[in-house]
Amino acid sequence: MSSPPPRIGFFGEPGAYSQAAAETFAPTWTSVPYPSLDEVFDAVMSGAAEAGMVPVENSTGGTIHRTYDLLLTHTCRITGEVELQIDHCLLTQGALELGELTQVFSHPQAIAQCEQFLRQLPGAEVVSTYDTAGSAKLIRERGLTHAAAIASERAAAVFGMHVLRRGIQDYAHNVTRFLAVCREGDHPFSDTPRADKTTLVFSLPDEPGSLHRALSAFATRGIDLSKLESRPIPGRPWEYLFYADLAAAADDPGCRAALTELAALAPMSRVLGSYAAWRPAAPSALPPSTRTPSSTASVS
Amino acid sequence: MSSPPPRIGFFGEPGAYSQAAAETFAPTWTSVPYPSLDEVFDAVMSGAAEAGMVPVENSTGGTIHRTYDLLLTHTCRITGEVELQIDHCLLTQGALELGELTQVFSHPQAIAQCEQFLRQLPGAEVVSTYDTAGSAKLIRERGLTHAAAIASERAAAVFGMHVLRRGIQDYAHNVTRFLAVCREGDHPFSDTPRADKTTLVFSLPDEPGSLHRALSAFATRGIDLSKLESRPIPGRPWEYLFYADLAAAADDPGCRAALTELAALAPMSRVLGSYAAWRPAAPSALPPSTRTPSSTASVS
Repeated sequence: MSSPPPRIGFFGEPGAYSQAAAETFAPTWTSVPYPSLDEVFDAVMSGAAEAGMVPVENSTGGTIHRTYDLLLTHTCRITGEVELQIDHCLLTQGALELGELTQVFSHPQAIAQCEQFLRQLPGAEVVSTYDTAGSAKLIRERGLTHAAAIASERAAAVFGMHVLRRGIQDYAHNVTRFLAVCREGDHPFSDTPRADKTTLVFSLPDEPGSLHRALSAFATRGIDLSKLESRPIPGRPWEYLFYADLAAAADDPGCRAALTELAALAPMSRVLGSYAAWRPAAPSALPPSTRTPSSTASVS
Repeated sequence: MSSPPPRIGFFGEPGAYSQAAAETFAPTWTSVPYPSLDEVFDAVMSGAAEAGMVPVENSTGGTIHRTYDLLLTHTCRITGEVELQIDHCLLTQGALELGELTQVFSHPQAIAQCEQFLRQLPGAEVVSTYDTAGSAKLIRERGLTHAAAIASERAAAVFGMHVLRRGIQDYAHNVTRFLAVCREGDHPFSDTPRADKTTLVFSLPDEPGSLHRALSAFATRGIDLSKLESRPIPGRPWEYLFYADLAAAADDPGCRAALTELAALAPMSRVLGSYAAWRPAAPSALPPSTRTPSSTASVS
């Protein structure tokens, strides 16, 4: 008797975008829904799931800070990434006119990505929920006839909803980056490609030029940054954390030396994971929802 | 006959936090409400208001990107800044138990700042609106007896609401930075202190080390950065804009040379304004809502 397939926890209800990411990354695994980002991390830490799949950044809305917060407070590491084109749909229980809608339910990030579209619906109240697909579920469960959810076409299929509009996001090119996470020390994906990307978080002393010195550690070794973002540390006004993605494996000798140099000047620095950068397969081999640009822009 | 006082447009309904910022910055001016950030900028451009006051960053929630977008798309400049401690209140039409609430209305930023508090209210739907004070107005106008607004104590006074809870934000120290804006070329505040801070926006070529080179322009001249943030350019996945605040006036000779050096390597760079950094008066001379930390942390 063969053992059951391993489990990858994803954020949201069945039909959530994170489920599509989980199945793209681990097609032979069982994907398991969790209603919050926190619960995905708890499942990974407890061993209820061998890995988790969570969104981290959207090309329109920017970074999902809660994911970085949870990476910092759990002994988890990033073990891979996936990018997916996100086409939001407006889902209702049946056909009706846009003007008849009185409520629109969705996750705040999806609402933000459809801001211009929602301005065409002045009569509809916009209600924040925990999940896009969960909003479709809520409308179905409550039998709301004049409400719509912003969610995926797949969520429409899962909850038997009508697709009133497709592709309602403000920018046609709307890509979300997801991270596969596992427990520190675990190696659940034995067949992943060689790591060539590293994500780290660091703080800096309050001294002129300290960010410039931190970046010098990488620039002098020719290590490219594909992301750099500062964020206020909650509860400590105007103190900042930095998130950075490096185009190198953490165990590459040059990168190891740069990280040692950074650690000497940063009050806090932590590598959140070293993993293979996402490379989509040839577009012809993929369904439309997984097509992504072939390269990511450098910011360093 | 003396001329009427000049007008400063603010974001939100009477009682909005931006009104408190406007009156702190320009106590002798008339403050005029506008329901959206866009309309504040339109009023400044048309001359309906001589200046505007808009939020740009919160110590818990981070940057308000729409404000930067509007600064980039209008020929406006930043002419000053104000920082205010933000104490959110839960406002209702009358006294009731938290468990009796079925809806909570507020602006998405305020909702984000009270996330932990709102988790204690699983029975209440959280509804996004255009403004905090506007949410109090909405509850009053519709006569909603089991709904609450997250807004200022001042909004409670303006709309005759009951303060059910005070200080419900997740982090006690919750500071918002506001910008005073005017038309490029105008000088509506003749008596402001000398500029010692500059805000700029730039993009960078997709080349290894380009951010390091950009920061070198300032670091080699001893010019401190008090903020640096990257943001995806909407509609152009993974291309980034950078927002930076410099601790120097734009017409300071060293800063002028650094900006020239930056302009030579950045495809786009624009100074959004050079102005006096916010320095709160001695706390004893101020009402509690305007007390702020005496210094801001450096990130450079």
